[in-house]
Amino acid sequence: MILAPWRTPLARALHRNRSLPHSRYAQLATVDPQGCPHNRSIVFRGFPADTNTLEFITDQRSEKVSQIYQNPWGELCWYFPHTREQFRLAGELQIIDNSSTESPTQTARQHRWQSLSDTSRQQFTWPHPGHPRTGDLTTDVPDPTTPPDSFCLLWLHPQRVDHLELRGTPQNRYCYQQDKNQTWTVQEINP
Amino acid sequence: MILAPWRTPLARALHRNRSLPHSRYAQLATVDPQGCPHNRSIVFRGFPADTNTLEFITDQRSEKVSQIYQNPWGELCWYFPHTREQFRLAGELQIIDNSSTESPTQTARQHRWQSLSDTSRQQFTWPHPGHPRTGDLTTDVPDPTTPPDSFCLLWLHPQRVDHLELRGTPQNRYCYQQDKNQTWTVQEINP
Repeated sequence: MILAPWRTPLARALHRNRSLPHSRYAQLATVDPQGCPHNRSIVFRGFPADTNTLEFITDQRSEKVSQIYQNPWGELCWYFPHTREQFRLAGELQIIDNSSTESPTQTARQHRWQSLSDTSRQQFTWPHPGHPRTGDLTTDVPDPTTPPDSFCLLWLHPQRVDHLELRGTPQNRYCYQQDKNQTWTVQEINP
Repeated sequence: MILAPWRTPLARALHRNRSLPHSRYAQLATVDPQGCPHNRSIVFRGFPADTNTLEFITDQRSEKVSQIYQNPWGELCWYFPHTREQFRLAGELQIIDNSSTESPTQTARQHRWQSLSDTSRQQFTWPHPGHPRTGDLTTDVPDPTTPPDSFCLLWLHPQRVDHLELRGTPQNRYCYQQDKNQTWTVQEINP
């Protein structure tokens, strides 16, 4: 696997902003079947080995999962406060749910589940997200080895990355684009 | 004008996060004519007097403006790091450009332009955003009284607001919805 050229500036931004826990939060836009955009914060969990793919976790019952099943295109907007940089990563989204039969993805799903804290794992046993709240949320501690059906990985495979550096005048902005042969090119563009 | 019920928790979040300059940055999702989502950070500029409308500024030449002309629906995702809260505000977007003839909106556009710093104003005289960078960006200081054609206001008129409080276990989440009579209701929902 060849490291995509936007990986180095993104790794630098993650490193320089590492003192801020919320620098690992980014906002993911998807589209529903009516053509309306939706947008929410998600937590970056790393790059699966030997890929340029960004990993997140999600509840299968959440609205974004049904949106992605129907339209897998998304754009992630990621702002780094310390260094005043923005990355916009657009590409296909992939849900790894309990029906994913390919064994490396199932293994990745299982490993990610096992790496979570009990508190994070508990959220996947709560009542249906977004439904009216009728009582206490369950606080059962789920099995730490086997993920429940609600637990999914969410993978973003970027095809276009827009990197804006707000610090300094004038600002700098770069557009990374993947062509049909999976080759990345970069161009400096006006901010 | 009746203050929408989500205004109080949003005002509280803005106040409690006021030490962080980037707490006024939020991410706006729009959809292009091909049905793909786009997402970028924008800076909240306040509520125009006697409205529940959120104000931002934008360059008319930016891609989001042409997307909004064709599909005015958007969702803003706003995360507050200190208090660990997220607001998702969905609704219609309105562009106030130089062709807007209604005088209160033109006056608002002029006043906002006059309130900006020279550095902010200069960005509206830079070469076309997103085009390949060919040379130095112009550094002319534009007329501080009359906005150039590129300067637009961007107004978001929310119709649905989702407020998630991540602090504490379990988390709290509220959904505010506007009905056809412009009346707001609120419901507690599962996080």
